[in-house]
Order: sequence, then structure tokens, then C-alpha cells
Amino acid sequence: MLDKFREECGVFGVFGHREASRIAYLGLYALQHRGQESAGIVSTDANDLHSETGMGHVADIFTQSRLENLKGETAIGHTRYSTAGESAAKNAQPLVVSCSQGELALCHNGNLINALQVRGQLEKSGSIFQSTSDSEVILHLIARSRQGTIEDAIQEALSQLTGAYSLIFLTHEKVIAVRDPRGFRPLNLGWLDGSPVLASETCAFDLIEARYDREVAPGEMLTLFKGGIRSRQISPPRPPSFCVFEHVYFSRPDSQIFGRSVYESRQLLGRCLAQEQPVEADIVVPVPDSGVAAAIGFSHESGIQFEFGLIRNHYVGRTFIEPKQSIRHFGVKIKLNPVAALIRGKRVVLVTTPS
Amino acid sequence: MLDKFREECGVFGVFGHREASRIAYLGLYALQHRGQESAGIVSTDANDLHSETGMGHVADIFTQSRLENLKGETAIGHTRYSTAGESAAKNAQPLVVSCSQGELALCHNGNLINALQVRGQLEKSGSIFQSTSDSEVILHLIARSRQGTIEDAIQEALSQLTGAYSLIFLTHEKVIAVRDPRGFRPLNLGWLDGSPVLASETCAFDLIEARYDREVAPGEMLTLFKGGIRSRQISPPRPPSFCVFEHVYFSRPDSQIFGRSVYESRQLLGRCLAQEQPVEADIVVPVPDSGVAAAIGFSHESGIQFEFGLIRNHYVGRTFIEPKQSIRHFGVKIKLNPVAALIRGKRVVLVTTPS
Amino acid sequence: MLDKFREECGVFGVFGHREASRIAYLGLYALQHRGQESAGIVSTDANDLHSETGMGHVADIFTQSRLENLKGETAIGHTRYSTAGESAAKNAQPLVVSCSQGELALCHNGNLINALQVRGQLEKSGSIFQSTSDSEVILHLIARSRQGTIEDAIQEALSQLTGAYSLIFLTHEKVIAVRDPRGFRPLNLGWLDGSPVLASETCAFDLIEARYDREVAPGEMLTLFKGGIRSRQISPPRPPSFCVFEHVYFSRPDSQIFGRSVYESRQLLGRCLAQEQPVEADIVVPVPDSGVAAAIGFSHESGIQFEFGLIRNHYVGRTFIEPKQSIRHFGVKIKLNPVAALIRGKRVVLVTTPS
Amino acid sequence: MLDKFREECGVFGVFGHREASRIAYLGLYALQHRGQESAGIVSTDANDLHSETGMGHVADIFTQSRLENLKGETAIGHTRYSTAGESAAKNAQPLVVSCSQGELALCHNGNLINALQVRGQLEKSGSIFQSTSDSEVILHLIARSRQGTIEDAIQEALSQLTGAYSLIFLTHEKVIAVRDPRGFRPLNLGWLDGSPVLASETCAFDLIEARYDREVAPGEMLTLFKGGIRSRQISPPRPPSFCVFEHVYFSRPDSQIFGRSVYESRQLLGRCLAQEQPVEADIVVPVPDSGVAAAIGFSHESGIQFEFGLIRNHYVGRTFIEPKQSIRHFGVKIKLNPVAALIRGKRVVLVTTPS
Repeated sequence: MLDKFREECGVFGVFGHREASRIAYLGLYALQHRGQESAGIVSTDANDLHSETGMGHVADIFTQSRLENLKGETAIGHTRYSTAGESAAKNAQPLVVSCSQGELALCHNGNLINALQVRGQLEKSGSIFQSTSDSEVILHLIARSRQGTIEDAIQEALSQLTGAYSLIFLTHEKVIAVRDPRGFRPLNLGWLDGSPVLASETCAFDLIEARYDREVAPGEMLTLFKGGIRSRQISPPRPPSFCVFEHVYFSRPDSQIFGRSVYESRQLLGRCLAQEQPVEADIVVPVPDSGVAAAIGFSHESGIQFEFGLIRNHYVGRTFIEPKQSIRHFGVKIKLNPVAALIRGKRVVLVTTPS
Repeated sequence: MLDKFREECGVFGVFGHREASRIAYLGLYALQHRGQESAGIVSTDANDLHSETGMGHVADIFTQSRLENLKGETAIGHTRYSTAGESAAKNAQPLVVSCSQGELALCHNGNLINALQVRGQLEKSGSIFQSTSDSEVILHLIARSRQGTIEDAIQEALSQLTGAYSLIFLTHEKVIAVRDPRGFRPLNLGWLDGSPVLASETCAFDLIEARYDREVAPGEMLTLFKGGIRSRQISPPRPPSFCVFEHVYFSRPDSQIFGRSVYESRQLLGRCLAQEQPVEADIVVPVPDSGVAAAIGFSHESGIQFEFGLIRNHYVGRTFIEPKQSIRHFGVKIKLNPVAALIRGKRVVLVTTPS
Repeated sequence: MLDKFREECGVFGVFGHREASRIAYLGLYALQHRGQESAGIVSTDANDLHSETGMGHVADIFTQSRLENLKGETAIGHTRYSTAGESAAKNAQPLVVSCSQGELALCHNGNLINALQVRGQLEKSGSIFQSTSDSEVILHLIARSRQGTIEDAIQEALSQLTGAYSLIFLTHEKVIAVRDPRGFRPLNLGWLDGSPVLASETCAFDLIEARYDREVAPGEMLTLFKGGIRSRQISPPRPPSFCVFEHVYFSRPDSQIFGRSVYESRQLLGRCLAQEQPVEADIVVPVPDSGVAAAIGFSHESGIQFEFGLIRNHYVGRTFIEPKQSIRHFGVKIKLNPVAALIRGKRVVLVTTPS
Repeated sequence: MLDKFREECGVFGVFGHREASRIAYLGLYALQHRGQESAGIVSTDANDLHSETGMGHVADIFTQSRLENLKGETAIGHTRYSTAGESAAKNAQPLVVSCSQGELALCHNGNLINALQVRGQLEKSGSIFQSTSDSEVILHLIARSRQGTIEDAIQEALSQLTGAYSLIFLTHEKVIAVRDPRGFRPLNLGWLDGSPVLASETCAFDLIEARYDREVAPGEMLTLFKGGIRSRQISPPRPPSFCVFEHVYFSRPDSQIFGRSVYESRQLLGRCLAQEQPVEADIVVPVPDSGVAAAIGFSHESGIQFEFGLIRNHYVGRTFIEPKQSIRHFGVKIKLNPVAALIRGKRVVLVTTPS
């Protein structure tokens, strides 16, 4: 069921920092929860783009020597959520192409609504597609634009697309960030040692000790270049439409998303639940990890005692071998186990999140 | 500093079950927190011992085909805590030897006090040692015993050793479990489909849906064989000396250890702390995961509000590449991040465990 | 120095055989000497293209389960010679794209002369390039063709390109093979159980027990489809220009290339050498493996005794660690060692090939 | 059928050289053909033994960092031939033990006839065995010896064993080489930069540019120590019994074995065959690689023309996936392919070695 949430990727960018690739690596490390299928970083030394991508976790993909290949003071990176299909490696981002605008790399968090339709038109007029990712459509539209600057070409391309997109582009000279007019997905701006940084969630800023500045606004295009940063509103204001799952499920509780603390949002949801659905019970128990803050909120509001009564096995690998004999709810049991002594004979409120 | 806690291994055994190796695999899966350096299973089909060991996590070591190599209805297994040194692979358990008692395998949780001294004597009289593990001493003493039965040989061997040991032996016909006279380390007996099972912690029973029966008593030897199980007290009663770290730090909170719920022990520690060291504060925050139950206990006792204010990054790999520029407390920061919105301006009680 | 010989790849195709992917795998196995950097197979079940590519050797890339993913009765494959550069994985073939002609896969052996120039024009008019391979240009030209059939589109595309190409295309319904007008690179047609097969060298037919039929002619396009095979001459006859390195160095001596036995060609070269450059010597020794047939020819012609006086280490891995102290000609020495007893005091003719 | 030739291992030693571990690594590289299952090196810095072993090929096992772990100026190494069984990793050599003689490492090429019997006696009197290798018996007998020096202990131990053994021992101060009284297996002494080196075959000396000195004599014990080298005859002279397979099949043709060139031995075998079994034929073709020298000898003696008519696929991996449809002699065909043009209509003498 989760497989449809392809919006759940992480994007990161840094401009003009001596340790650009390493900063990007740490940023992706902090955004790992937004995608574990693949990850990649592309950097530039103003002459070339350097790319390293791989399947799996950030910590497994990037070695010292791969980071050293990522030369230059500017870099962007991406973590990708698991999707089915044999072409997974081809869909790894950042996408890198060579086109009329020169070399160009792209990270995309979000889903385009009219991607298939536009792709059909592009194929008809001679484009070739090498992945099944809707993000490739964006690059084709940019490549075909007759606009003189990359910013204008991006703006023209995006004017033909609808849907959710928090984008970070990389050229030899610039990093360009864009958020769709409704702001479905988060994108934040921060500062590290005087260099601008971009990230899906603020927890990435915390790890690298960057200072949070503000959100990239819905419909805003930010250009990071040698002269500083430049903002442009590329689409008229629309009613914002922030994705509720970011607060409920996707984001880390220590992040600020859409200008609010995720932890506090979840806690508030728990308080509301306690008001709307009051129950008589002995203890409130969360399904870790996303249910924890909500359960605490429920406990505070209802006065029912909070207990951490479900223990998570932190060593569950990506695969496990099932027994032949039936074990009820084996898939759950290998990940979670109740504290029997705690819940025996108790009336328990179990708080989970609709994921 | 943690490297000294070599006691922190997990042991498991099952006798006479159609899916013995798979049950052992799941048992080790649940005991993974007691050791991530190496793991192994040895099984018997009454004719031979079959052994599969490897470095790393249980889920990575055991494939379908390696489990199929582990033929037979009886098996024992071990997870080993990280220790330094080049000979790590040689120290992986279960140890398997051929000796006067036939083929013999051993899993050991604990540390022997007089191992070096006994080892010196054994070498003097012609024994050769192939590992740096103190467990190898036990096997040499058994091999040299003139006793007619394996149980008597084990008893004679252990009478020459002092220290902590929860042991599980495997022969072609039997599984033999022994706990040292003071009961430093835990060892439990359960039942699955009529077959006896043994495990360091009861959380292993929960996963395989075995029924918890009782602890193996301090100084008790249990023989699991075709005729059932047989108990023998092999050393006079001594004042029990349960290792406090089992409840404070090692064991999973959903386990029963030394007959008590680990979660409840930790919660009680938090309550005591609140009584002994009352403070004025706004919120109580645990250092996850071992501090959670204690912080809840502290909160209940003190009335100070509980918050899950430190978020753990679940994707921290075994290695990460540090930035060259200094980031304060980087090692901690990559694992834990505070929820800034929650603790800003607050007086915080941070509850952790002395690990 | 060898890095420039990018022509040295292997291509293979099979149409309408129950074991298509397995046949392609074996074909590539036999063509492994034409490229060890990467290999890939794309198959079709008439509804979809299925692709599996990887870095390294055929035997390491393709597992039972990856072959099973390659569904359908038609498949093409490629082995790629080592080239420098970070984007090696992106350059692995077969290339697979989606375009106006539907899904299309391509294997290419050869080098295009005007690829960079055409690529520049394509980028100017809106194409994006994802690899540094000149083969990608071919696909763009096909995608932009307004021709109604894939054959016509390929013909139109190739009319704009000059250089060396032995190509095998795969669509949902067809396999299409084309050889450039001068026939620089080899391409052969054979039959296996009534199904047509294509391969760079006939040694691939030997392994799968296919019957050799004929060369694909210079300038010929062969369509393999449900109705049989269809030939079309797509370019006017030109003076043939077979690459001499195929016989001297690239191909296996057990192959027929350009209608001649490679072994016999090399032997003839040795005979000519003996005639043109007669010497007084005691023994003729080849540098294995490519010098063997020539040395035998030299021996037969000159009457000087043939000896296999240089022994090759068959276990030289892709990397080896050099000693710090200098060893003269270490790089050669680790691969080849003379039989000292044989050459001591002898006048030796050493026969090698200009690679 | 080859699985029984367990004698086919390679041993190497170097004493007092600044690059000891690297020299040992190169020596094993040259001896790789004597065993591809596992390999290992143990070095000493006079205080400790350092050990690195692994499954597979020398080039894959030893990385720069593993060689750096092998500290000190003295080292011994081993390559092991493939044997069946689950305990392959445990049987990897050099064996390393701690015993009454201190730390001790052993490399063994050969098979002991009475190993099982002695092992039974040792177990009865209290020894434990951790491998299925007969080499472990040697270490137990040394550990039990009451002799004051390691040399005397080794001599006493070997006096109880019969069979084939070329042994290299390593202690903190010495390297000790022993060859059995009949000299079944080869063992050679050479010199590199003033340091003594030992190897199964002289091709190992060629690679490191060591000078060949002489064979270790049957029944001789050589001690390499700070003061130089010391020889001792530890068993009375016996009629020599060199294993014929060393010259026929095991050894590399560029090695001197038992004081003779392997290449010349094989060539002589071919000459004898031509004399004993004269035939009428058009060409002589070897089954590569072991049949090459014999076929050349046959050709020289008989006057029948030599041709290299069977081509070996150098890229055959350890595994390959067979087709489902039957291909006759598939196992052979994937490794060897005839040059059809050469043998068509010819009477062929095929020369192979009885392996």
C-alpha cells in the first residue's frame, strides 16, 4: 500500500562550500528516512558534473573514495523511496543529462499529474526516454525551450506541468531550487558558514549545524550563484495545499515542516483524538515510531498513563526467512513485541498513524 | 568503553523440533541486540554436527540455503558482541570440536575469571589453543575428563572454573544447558509444540510463540534428550549475583530477566531516581532507547511531563564518514537530534542509563 | 594504449527460441574476450522489454534469477570493452529507450566518426543525452524519423552517420541487424533449432551448437520476425574495409571472421613474416595467446623449432599489489614467465602481435 | 575425480626481509595454480603472529590493508586446493595455535597416511580437534612433546607420522622447513636480497627475482633464523619417491621440480609416446594447457605437424548456468573449442595428460 507514496523522497543542495560533497552526504544521511531504495550526489567544480549514485542506504553507497570523486564546492543529492520494477537503478537520482543548456542535473521530490500525457507528446516529436520516472519529462521540456537563460527555460518547462514538485537543479555555475505553486512538498533554505543550503527537512540542517532561514515559498524559484541568492516568483499565488502525510508520517519529528514542528503537530493530533474520542482505559501505548508523539499528546489530554509498551526490534534486516509453520502476524511480530508484564489485564489505547 | 562488556552475548537452543534450524535462526534474530559481531548455528541430525557461522548480523549471515545445510531436529545458536582483534572470525561461536566425547559444540555467554591461568596449565601439558576466547578452555577440560558421561565430564570441567557462564552444549544426542552457581547471566527454558527451547531472554520465546516455563536455576544443569528433560544441581547453592546491567542496559525491555520484567525494572529505577533526586523541571526526556522506561517512571513519580524529545536516526550504518570541519559532538549528533521546538526555554530532565 | 580500441565489443541476438535469454547468456559467455567491463541482455515477450545489465564478467553478472527475469523468446546481448570514466555503468549496453517507435533496445559494436557533430545538432534542437556513448546518437535519429516503419527509420538514421557499426536492435516484435557499408566490424548469421541467431564471432555459434549460415553483408539490414528473415540492402556497395585487428588480435582463433579462419590468418601472417624476414635462430616462441598461431606458421615456414617457452599465469586478477622494491618489468612478469631451461643459450625468435 | 589430489597445495616462506608479507603475497600469486579454494599468510614481528586468511583467490583475498596488518620481516603462506565440505574456512592454512612451544603457525603440502589413527589416540588422551585437516595432528604432537627446542619437538612429532609432507613452520624467531624422507612433494630454497626464501615451485622465485639455490632434501629440516640457516637430517635416507603428477600435471611448466624442468619432462613424455605409439596422422593437437609441451615433443619426434587446434576460453568463471536443452559435452565445450578450419578432414593426434 505504501508503494504509491512516491512523493516520499529527500532532496538536498549546497552552494560554494569547501566540503560540498561531504555536506551533501551528511544531509542525505539525515534524510535517509525519506527513501532507502537508492541515493546519489552530483557535484560540480565549474567545469564538469561529477556523479555517484547507487542502490541502498547512503552509508553503504558512499565511500571515502567516491566522495573524493565528487569534486568541487557545489553539490546536490537525493534519496529515493522504494518503488517496484526492474529499472530501479536507472531511476536513481540526481538525473544527469547533456542538452542545449549544457550539462544539467536534477533532484525531484513529488509527482507530476500530467507527466504521461506530456511524455507522449514529447515522444511523438522525437524525444527518447530512458527511465520510467516522471522527472525525466522536466529535463526534456527544458532542453526544448528556446529561452536564453536556464532560469527562463525551467520556468517555461514547469508552466507546462501540473502536480507536486520540490526541485533542485545543478548546472556548472548554479543551483536552482523550485517549489510548486501549491507547495505540496517541503523545501527549506539554510546557511552554513556563509553558504546557502537546501533540504527537504530541517533535521538535515541540524546535523551539519546549518542555521534554518526559511521555507522556499510555493511557486518560488531560488537561484544560488556566485553573487548570492536570487528569488523569483514563477507562478501566481495559489491556495496552499501542504501534504498532511508529511506531518503524520513521512517527516522526522525533529524537523520543521511547512513552518511547524512535526513533533508538536503529532502531539496535537493526539490531543484532538483524546477530545474527539474519549475512552476509558488504563494505559496509552504508541506503535513506534510515528505514533509516539501522538500517544503522548493523547496521554496529556486524557490523563491516561503513557507507557512504551511495544518494543521495536532495531535489527530487522531488509529480508528475513519465515518459518514454515504458521506464526500468527509473523511480519508484525518480527518488528514489534509487547511488554507482556505491562499490558496484562490492562485496558490499552493503542495509538498509531494512518500510513 | 563498552568493549569490556563481553558478557553481552546471546545463546539459544531447541531440541527435537522439525524446524530446528529455522527456530534457532528466529531465536537469534530476537537476540540480535546481545551481539552484532558474529553469529552461528550448529545443528545435529543425530549422525553429524552441521555448522554455519559468519561475521555480522543474523539476517545477513543466514540464507535459505545455509539454513537448509543445518540438517536435523536439534540446534543451538549464538550471537557475539563486538570485540577488537584480528581473530574475530576464529572466535565466532558455537565452537565445534571433535574429542574423546565425540563431536561437541558450545555456546557461551559470560566471562571466566581463571581462564588464563587454566589455559597456561593446559598448554603446559600439551593442549593447543586456536582462539583467544576463554570458552575454548571449557572444551579442553571436558576433553581431558575421564568421566564416562558427557554430563559428568562437563560437571568436572566446570568445577575447575570460576566466573560467569550460561552455557548450551550440543552433542549428537543431547542439548545440555548449564548456568553458573551465582547466576550472573540469564538463561531461560520454554516450550514450543512440545519441544524444549532455551534462550538468554524471553523475547526470543515471544517471537517463535514458545511458552515461557522458568529460568534455568543458578548451578543447575539441564539435559534435553529424547526421553524429555533431566535436571541436576551441579554446584552447591551460592548467594545469587545477577548482573545489574542486564536490567539496566543489555536486555530488551520486553524480556523477563531473572524472573522480572526488564521494562518494569527500568521504570522502577526512574521512580526511585525521582524520589531520591527530586528536581524542578518542565519536561522529562529519555535518551533512547534504554532510557525510555526509566524516564516514564520518573515522570509518573514526579508528575513532570514526559516528552520524547530526542529523536534517533534509525539508519545509522556501522560506519559514517565525518566532515573535515569540526562539528561538535558529531558522533552523538548523527545518532540523536533534539526536537528543538519542544525543549526551547524549558528545564529538561534528561534520563539515560549508565552504559 | 588499448583503451582506444572501443570497437572491440561483442553483440549477440536470437529470435523465437524457447530459451532465448539462456542462449544469449551463452553467446555472451563465448564473446567475453571482446569486452570485460560490462555486459547486458534485453529480452522481449512481445509485450515488454526486460533488461539486465551489470559491470564485470558475464559469469558474475547473470544469476539464475536474473536470467528468469528476462522473459520471452527473443533476446539481444552485448559485452563491452573497458573504457575509462565514471559513467561506465550508464554506458553499459544494450541501451533501452522508449520513443515514437515504441520501446527499442540497441547493441552496437563499432565507432561513429561524426557522432559528436550530430550530437551537437541534436542537442541544439532539444535532445537530451544521458551517456557519453556515441551509440545514443543512433537512437535519437531513429526517434526523430518520420518514417512509418522501424526499418525505414533505422535506414534514415544511419544515412546520416558515418563510421563503423555492427548493430542489433530489438523491438517488441523484431530483431534487426545492420552492418555498415564498408563492413568494418564482423556480424554473422546462424541457425539454432530453426531459430535465427546473430553473433560477432562464430565461436558463439559453436558453444550453443548453432549452424553457421553466412555473414551479414556490408550495408545489409536483416529483419528477424515471425514470418522468417527479410534482407534489404540499405546502402550502395562500397569497397570493403575489414578491420585487420579482428584477425590479428581481437577475435578468437577458433572463429570465422569476414569468412576466413582467424587461426589460419594468423598462421599465414607467421609464414609471411618468415619469408620476408628470415633469421637464423634455434627456437620460435610465441607471446601467448594471440602470438601462438603466427609462431607456429613461422616455424612451419622457416623450419625453426617451435617451443611454448613463455608461460602465462592464468590466475592474474584484475588488480595486484606491487612490491615496493623495484622488480624489473613487474607488470609483464606477473603475467608471463619464460621456461628458463628451454631458452638458456638459445637464439630465440619471439613472435607477438601488434596490439 | 580431481578432488582426491589434496596434495596439490602451495607453500611459501621468507625470513628477514623488509617486505616479508608482500613477498609472501607474490609468492602465493605465482603458486595460485596449486590451490584456489583458500589462501593465507602469517607473519611475525618477533612479538606476535599476525594472520590473514580467506576463501578464494590470492588476488581477491589480500588487500593493501590486509597486507599492512601482516607486520614484521618474516612470513609464511599457503594456497589450498578445492575440497568439498562445509568446514572449508576452518581448514584454510596457515594453521595458527598457541601451545607449550608458544605461538606456532604451519603450512602443509601433502597427505599423512596414519593421520586418522594418531588423531584417535590423541583424542583419547584429551586433545580436541577443530578441523578435518590432517595437518592439525602435527601441531598436537608438537604441543605434547617434552623436547626443549622447537626443532626437537618437530622431529619427535614427525617420527610418529608417515606420508607426504613438505612443511613450513613459523615461530616468533624462526622459520622451519621440513620435507618427508621420500620427498613426495617438492620444496625449494632460494635467496632474495640476502634473505632465504622457500617455495613449492621455482616459478615463485622467478616472479620475485629470487635466486634458486637448491631443493630442501628428503628428510632434511632447515631452520631459518637470525644467524643464517641451519640444516639437519631428521630421518635416515630412504629411496626417493617423487610424485609423478608434479611433472605431468600439477606444476607449472616454467618451474624446476625435483631438480628438473617441468616443461622438458613433459616434452620428453611426448617424445617417448611418439616412439612407443607411432601413428599416421596429419597434425598433433594438445589439450591445453598441460598437454602443450607433450604435444610439441610428440611433434618433434614424429615429424607430424604441431597445431594449437583447441582454443581455451580464458573467461570461464567458477560457475556457469547450463541451458535446459541438451548440448553434448557442454562442460567441455564451455572451456575448449576446436579450430574447425584446421581439423576438418584431418587425422588428428590429440595429446592430453592423465589428470
